[in-house]
Formats: sequence, structure tokens, C-alpha cells
Amino acid sequence: MFGAGDVRVVDVPDPTIQQPTDALVRVVRACVCGSDLHPYHSMSPDPSGTPMGHEFIGVVEEVGGDVSTLRPGDFVIAPFAWSCGRCEFCRAGLQTSCVNGGFWAAGGIGGGQAEAIRVPLADGTLVKVPGVDESADEARLASLLTLSDVYGTGWHAATRGGVTRDSAVTVIGDGAVGLLAVLSAKQLGAERIVLMGRHPARTELGREFGATDVVPERGEEGIAQVRDLTGGGSPIVLEAVGHMPAYEQAVGVVRPGGTISRVGVPQYEVAPVGFGSLFGRNVTLTGGPAPARAYIERLLPAVLDGTVNPGKVFDQTVGLDDTPKGYAAMADRTALKVVVRP
Amino acid sequence: MFGAGDVRVVDVPDPTIQQPTDALVRVVRACVCGSDLHPYHSMSPDPSGTPMGHEFIGVVEEVGGDVSTLRPGDFVIAPFAWSCGRCEFCRAGLQTSCVNGGFWAAGGIGGGQAEAIRVPLADGTLVKVPGVDESADEARLASLLTLSDVYGTGWHAATRGGVTRDSAVTVIGDGAVGLLAVLSAKQLGAERIVLMGRHPARTELGREFGATDVVPERGEEGIAQVRDLTGGGSPIVLEAVGHMPAYEQAVGVVRPGGTISRVGVPQYEVAPVGFGSLFGRNVTLTGGPAPARAYIERLLPAVLDGTVNPGKVFDQTVGLDDTPKGYAAMADRTALKVVVRP
Repeated sequence: MFGAGDVRVVDVPDPTIQQPTDALVRVVRACVCGSDLHPYHSMSPDPSGTPMGHEFIGVVEEVGGDVSTLRPGDFVIAPFAWSCGRCEFCRAGLQTSCVNGGFWAAGGIGGGQAEAIRVPLADGTLVKVPGVDESADEARLASLLTLSDVYGTGWHAATRGGVTRDSAVTVIGDGAVGLLAVLSAKQLGAERIVLMGRHPARTELGREFGATDVVPERGEEGIAQVRDLTGGGSPIVLEAVGHMPAYEQAVGVVRPGGTISRVGVPQYEVAPVGFGSLFGRNVTLTGGPAPARAYIERLLPAVLDGTVNPGKVFDQTVGLDDTPKGYAAMADRTALKVVVRP
Repeated sequence: MFGAGDVRVVDVPDPTIQQPTDALVRVVRACVCGSDLHPYHSMSPDPSGTPMGHEFIGVVEEVGGDVSTLRPGDFVIAPFAWSCGRCEFCRAGLQTSCVNGGFWAAGGIGGGQAEAIRVPLADGTLVKVPGVDESADEARLASLLTLSDVYGTGWHAATRGGVTRDSAVTVIGDGAVGLLAVLSAKQLGAERIVLMGRHPARTELGREFGATDVVPERGEEGIAQVRDLTGGGSPIVLEAVGHMPAYEQAVGVVRPGGTISRVGVPQYEVAPVGFGSLFGRNVTLTGGPAPARAYIERLLPAVLDGTVNPGKVFDQTVGLDDTPKGYAAMADRTALKVVVRP
């Protein structure tokens, strides 16, 4: 990406093993994230550009001398942060705070929207998927790809929000993360799942994933409807957008003593948290970047046996050369989420 | 209170039973709360004045016809909110959000800094203490009085913060609430309790209550010390002040994946909660007004048998006529917390 609206596919040197803990992965499928749209809308022009993409599945091509759990030919899922797997935070399942790790497309590490990528700390980062190879059908590949980020992010919203059997949950946002927060809440046993979203094709998928109610209205009107549907407010609110109006909506619909779990990357730094918003009603604010790595093994079996089909959030596929068209389609909302097939 | 710094003791009509669910209570001991200092510092002049005080213990003098659990002569503790005891929120232990309840010194209800007070919804609100009467010694009365608010508020901070056996906790603020948050954390089994405060007499009491470390420094220096003491940040932070610098200190000392539990009434409405403060590190923000009513039965036995002595936070006593001096002493920090003896 070279600036707002300026995505180019360029040739760069092939990645190589640089550390003995590295692996080289040939990307089988990548995708465009809702969070990639933030720089797509606002990035200042940068003539040197920045690599993009933090969600990919692929095949290991080569491993460094210290990599012990992977070998060439392994089919792998890469979570959206790389991590050592050994530090206090990795052991606690918070790999996004790994003291040795980092994020793709930064600090000399490439992006996933590419033909191949160097994966640091490969033993800690990558999850091998036995019995799957790149000849798997598109639906299966798509669902595996969601484990890189978007499904784990929806799951993080739901688990951090405290969803359990019989919970009543409101999900704000009908993007891919919101829809997979619905799916996650359903898997965790939620009884009532209200989805706030106004794009019929998306909210229909939300219903398929488990939403019991859809509220298309926004702002005060939407808040009033959710408060009415939930008898005075939702005990758990999953905020999957990241813009201030979504935060305000979350504060508006949450029940006293309830929890707002945020996974949309906040496009604000300060927000209301005082007596009139969170404090007075003992509302808890939680969430953050999902440690997708922590959830892959937990979520994989139901993906592999077809119990869930999170890959349905992908509704368009482009070749690598057409990646700019994928960004444009998501930005103008003609696509919900776009697969990139190198 | 008639304005900032303007506390007067005035004669008002005696309270009377107005609803069949009311009780009249003669106040045995009341006190001045840290939160009473906020209007003491900033209240606009109001010629009609407002009653003050939301913490008291007393003796039931008269009950309405529908009151079934109390009778004249009962010694009672009043929590700082009155509540029905029957609604969803009361049953869930969140009496500060009672749909039928409210707060003292508002809406026609008097304040506790008085000779007597009308208590609405008396069955739900008051907790009878068998075997105690007003002839009990001062230390016992003082400890019982803390169950009205300040001890329950410290307990709320600790339990909402998730303190359990072996927790590492940082408490911000060496006021009465902070000190009782220390005591609560200790009772809940915390192994490490760092108290941030710089008034030696107070932090000494904090050590007596269970603080393992005291950090008098504030701001960046204090943050660096706590991060050093806790090996990179405190998993649980109890914020018992309510001013923005205390919030910023909490954000500074909290560990990734940790929890900030606030019980100091926020003197701000907006605060940093974005990627750079809470979100990026998956920090949870929780807390609010303590449902003191929910905790009285839980905390009472150890007070009655002398296992704990939370009343030590009181270091000065005034008669009702000298209540203005009690405010002044707390405002200029010559007193930690002041008992009012009508």
C-alpha cells in the first residue's frame, strides 16, 4: 500500500530464512481484513510503500535449523500475530502480547497478501493442519483461513465478553467479525443473539450463524429497540466495528452490571467511561486484539468436520494481481470479505 | 451543604413514616466520605442547601405497616444506596442499580449526617446486627460503620478486579477506600499488594492491613517503580481515587491482559481507552459504585469477631455540631476519615 486508495502489486525479493527459528511459507490463500481498510481510507502517501495482509494459510517450503515441529510440505494456518509460544503471555493465551513476537507487515516481516512469506518463531506461530492440503475445496480453505484472524477475533469477543450457555448477547456490526462473533456466541450456547446491522445479505448470514433478532436501526432508535428486545439492556455486548458511534451504541444498549467486549480496532483514543456511561452502572469494558493463536486448536475440529462454516463470510475471490480490486470491493461494500488467491 | 466549603448544621423537621415500607432510624454514628469532598470543593452556592451523608449505623425507632423484618430497637447498618431487595438487580447483588431504589440525600430522602433519617424500602435496605447495641465500644461501632460504604467499596474493587488467592495487586490511593481495598485483597488471599500512596501514617495502616510494598512516587516515576516491583506490570489494579492522574497511573502500571477496577468516583467523563491505553494490551476496565448492601452479610462476621478492624480508617470524631470541622479536617488532610457522633 502506497497511500490511501493506492494498493499496488509489486515484485519484491523472495523471502529467505534469516533466523534458525524461521520458516518460509508459500501462501495458498490470504485475504483482506476490515482493519486493512483503515489505512486504505487514511494512509498518507509513502513512496516506499508497506506490505499488507496478516491472514494467510499456506504450505511450508523451508525451515530454519531450530524449527522442530514443522517441515516442508506441512499445511499451516498463520495467526495474525507471530509469537514465541513460550513466554508468560503465550502460555497464558495472550500471544498478541508475546514479549518476543510481533505483527506481520512490520519490522522487516512481509505481509500475507503475497506469494510467499518469512514466518519468524515458526514453532510458536504456525499451526499445522494434518490431513489437509491445498487441493482442499474452496469452502474448506476459506473456513481454515478464518482461523488466521476473523473467526478467532469473533471468538475472542464472545469469550472475553463472558458468553456462556443461555447468555443474552448483542453484537454490534454486521461485518465479518461481527458475524463470526454471532457464530461464536451461538457455539458457546447463547440463547438470545441480537445483531445490529443493516446490510440484508450480511444479516441473513448472521441469522444463519445464530442471530435470533436483527436490528437495522442505528443510534438512539437502534438503542431503544435493543433495550426493548432485551427487557432493559443486553448483559453482554460485542462491539465489532471500532468507530465511536459503535462504542456509543454499545454503551447505550448494555445492561447495568453488563460487559462490553470490543474487538473492532478503536479508531479513537478517548471515550466516555465516567459516571454517566460505564461507571455509574458498573459496566465492564474489555477486549482487544484477539490472540488468534490461542484459539486455533479449539476451533479447528468443528471447522474440519463441517459443524461450522465460518468461511461463508468470504463472498468474493481475487487473484493476487487483482488485490487492489479486492480492497475497492470491500471499501465500497460490494464485498463482505475478499479472498486473495496467489 | 450550601456551597463549596459551606457546611452548616441546621434544624429541619423530624422525619416521619411516609410509606408503609419506611423505617425511621435514629443515627448512632455517621461519617464523612471522600466523595463528600467533591461538592465540598466545587458545589455552586445553593441557598436551600442539600442534606449530606450516606453512611450510618443506628437504631430503628419506628417502622411502617409493611415492614416485616425489622422492629423498634433493632441495631442496623445502612448501605449507601437504598434498595428493594427483590428486583433483578438486587437479586444479582447490584443494589446500586435497583429499579425501585435510590441514594440518600436526594429526592426527598435525608442524609445520614443527622440525628435521624427516614429509610425507604427498609426491609430491602437495612441489615440488622443482632447482639450489638449503641453501647458497643467505639472501635466496634467504627468497624460496623465501614460496612455502610467504605469497606464494601474496597471489597467491591477487589472482587470486581478478580482478586483471588496468590494474586498480585496494586492499589492506587491511600485514602480510606484504598486502605480497605488493601484489606479486602488480603482477605481474598492476594500474595503481593503494592500500595501507591505518599502519606506515611496512611501507608503504615496500609501495611498493617496487608500491603507488602508501598510506592510513594506518583506519575511516571511511580509507574516505573511498580512495573519494576511486579516484573512488568500488575495483573490487577484497584483505582480508589477517581481523578484522571490516578486513572493514568492505573493504565501505566497494569500488565497486558490485566484488569483495572475503579471505585473512586470518576471526576472525568472521557478517558483514554484506545489502542495505546487499554485495547492494544487487552486490559479490562471494570468497577463502579459498590453495592455495599450485597457485601454486608459476607463481611460482618470477621468484623464482629475482631478478625479485621476496618474501623481503623477513622482517625477523628466530631459531634454533629462540629460536622463542618470534620469536612475541613478531611479536606486539608489532617484527618483520614471522620466519624460524626450525633
